[in-house]
Amino acid sequence: MGKKILVPQQSNGNYKFIGGVIFAIVTIYFLFNGYVDLLNESGEYSSYFGESFYDEDVAEYEYPDRVKHHVYNGPKEKACLVMMVQNPDLYDVVRTVKVMEDRFNLHYNYDWVFINNKPLSDEFKYVLGEIVSGKAKFATVPEGQFAEPESVDKAKALKVREQMMEINIPTSGLANYRNLWRYKSGFLYNHRIFDDYDYFWITEVDMKIACDVNYDVFKFMRENNKRLGFVKSYKTSIFPQTVKTIWKHTKDFMSFAPNFVSENNLLKFVSEDGNSYNQCGIETGNMVGAFEFFRSKEYQAYFQFVDEHNGWYYERWTDDDFVSIAASMLLDKDEFHFFDDFGYNHQLDEHAFEFVCPQERGIRLENKCSCNPYFSLTWKSQSCVPRFYEVSGKKKPSAWDSY
Amino acid sequence: MGKKILVPQQSNGNYKFIGGVIFAIVTIYFLFNGYVDLLNESGEYSSYFGESFYDEDVAEYEYPDRVKHHVYNGPKEKACLVMMVQNPDLYDVVRTVKVMEDRFNLHYNYDWVFINNKPLSDEFKYVLGEIVSGKAKFATVPEGQFAEPESVDKAKALKVREQMMEINIPTSGLANYRNLWRYKSGFLYNHRIFDDYDYFWITEVDMKIACDVNYDVFKFMRENNKRLGFVKSYKTSIFPQTVKTIWKHTKDFMSFAPNFVSENNLLKFVSEDGNSYNQCGIETGNMVGAFEFFRSKEYQAYFQFVDEHNGWYYERWTDDDFVSIAASMLLDKDEFHFFDDFGYNHQLDEHAFEFVCPQERGIRLENKCSCNPYFSLTWKSQSCVPRFYEVSGKKKPSAWDSY
Repeated sequence: MGKKILVPQQSNGNYKFIGGVIFAIVTIYFLFNGYVDLLNESGEYSSYFGESFYDEDVAEYEYPDRVKHHVYNGPKEKACLVMMVQNPDLYDVVRTVKVMEDRFNLHYNYDWVFINNKPLSDEFKYVLGEIVSGKAKFATVPEGQFAEPESVDKAKALKVREQMMEINIPTSGLANYRNLWRYKSGFLYNHRIFDDYDYFWITEVDMKIACDVNYDVFKFMRENNKRLGFVKSYKTSIFPQTVKTIWKHTKDFMSFAPNFVSENNLLKFVSEDGNSYNQCGIETGNMVGAFEFFRSKEYQAYFQFVDEHNGWYYERWTDDDFVSIAASMLLDKDEFHFFDDFGYNHQLDEHAFEFVCPQERGIRLENKCSCNPYFSLTWKSQSCVPRFYEVSGKKKPSAWDSY
Repeated sequence: MGKKILVPQQSNGNYKFIGGVIFAIVTIYFLFNGYVDLLNESGEYSSYFGESFYDEDVAEYEYPDRVKHHVYNGPKEKACLVMMVQNPDLYDVVRTVKVMEDRFNLHYNYDWVFINNKPLSDEFKYVLGEIVSGKAKFATVPEGQFAEPESVDKAKALKVREQMMEINIPTSGLANYRNLWRYKSGFLYNHRIFDDYDYFWITEVDMKIACDVNYDVFKFMRENNKRLGFVKSYKTSIFPQTVKTIWKHTKDFMSFAPNFVSENNLLKFVSEDGNSYNQCGIETGNMVGAFEFFRSKEYQAYFQFVDEHNGWYYERWTDDDFVSIAASMLLDKDEFHFFDDFGYNHQLDEHAFEFVCPQERGIRLENKCSCNPYFSLTWKSQSCVPRFYEVSGKKKPSAWDSY
């Protein structure tokens, strides 16, 4: 069927020319500067060169023209996607980010901010810089925010972890999780890397949305005056000792600062009787938020108020518990939004417990959801979404009991 | 922050109007035709209505404009993506297809052909019709092609399966796998649903490519005169009894029809000494091919010749074994192509054994691969790719031993 074509693709030549120019610039740069980090001061990185990968000496094939990828030039919010990461997770991060890109961000090219408690490697920065369609930014947690405070009795904290492990309370044994939950409850939103952003979509390694998101989520938040958007809400634990004193401290805070409590609050979401926390948590591994709220004096005051009691270490408070109570107390109930159109799972196993799928057939088809509605948690007993609909006075979607 | 906007999005109205028109047409159609299958005769289905999913009575939010998805209108090959499926696998199929769409087919909108040995459900057809960007077509295996031939001694075949299960030969116990392997070895390519196609990319449930494919793979095949493109080649089994007599029958075939054997063949790929099969199989769960070859009299004659011996049932021949030997014998060695830029895995576990990742860093970055090169099988001992490079006289990529 015709002879084999050995002529290299024309555009390879162009790439090679561009590659040569870049090589020259980089060389000159190094000559004058020595080996320095190529990142700019704020840790930004975005340099998708589109370099040609075909070695000259093995390029025996002609490759058809490459697809030109969509670059978004329309109006945009000041917003970013966020993930807490660690160096060894590089390829799990790449896989997680790629789904968010394909499902949502390729259309809008929002920036990504990756945060670690230790400096991220050059390889990590370089690879993520190429994967994302917006800018990739990298930040390190400021000194002291990702560690047990001095006021924590280390022996007592260790004993708590050991006791909780003995009765198989999930993830209770890892000291660093407690630092992470505390950090994501209070400090994260004040990181200076977020100074120029109004909204965030926080994700986590190995989470996945199950549907295409074909509209600008951040614009949706602004136009509808939303401050907290969530995809899953669930009973954070069946063990009451994980949040033993959080409600007591919360009530103390409300007595201490009654004017901070929202008039049209959603407290009934997290407490049936006003005297206890029902452990209805919002999943912060897939949450859209307004920085203005999370940085507000009310939110930060509540964090500082309860943080003094070190419940992250002496009990097992999570960011899901904290954010859920804080928002229910401090936001107007209309400032919440349940994103019933994203779908969500965490873990590689698609049939795992933490699985959310839109119940409305039309939503699933329009958004090309790759999830099975029969396995969705949303309207099942472990979920707090039914309670959210009830106490916020929203009408349930018509398909809520279809599966 | 402003008042909540209760006005429904304008485009919802448009969709509703279109929806109404469609509803009316469908109603009239049913009145005159009774309940009939809405598919046309060839089983095609593609009707992404883009219907709005917001119930009027719960549409309390304003949603931003929806993204307009890319529709490809450029030149295209006559080609399709193919998957053998079963009704209960619907959501696993959706998930598998979506990755192929996002990574490749959204740019080209090639058709998908789904084949089952039983009729596919309306739900299956409808959902897949909405997920894919080209046409979705559905076909049933013709009577008799997906079953043990009459010449098979059922008791003997059962005993083989039991014996193989006893020594833990993987997937040896399931009778239907053997029908599937036989079908995919010989019959599949002659299905009349493929009559108008020149090329196929065959996939399977739960397979995933790990990289963006930013060029037209089918055009690549045609322009470079390739007939078989593969992503993984491996030792199909460590148990020689699974292919005990296949090489004997192959040699008999070569004696019977010596002129069918390609002059510049790749037989050294599947046999070191010419006297035995080395069990180097090409993974047919992710393979690009030219129908012309798979439907050729040479290929089909070889299938019929060895099929008489019922090795699918009395041993455990797979389509990977069969295709690998057939192509090595009947094709010119230059008609093979190893796609080192796709990446591939099967199974939900990303760290599973069957894992392929491009070794060249430039390829991984340009194609946004979400795989870890350290885990790739390609240049490891279970792989037959090194042998393919060696016997086809190709130069190994420079990074082959980087990980």
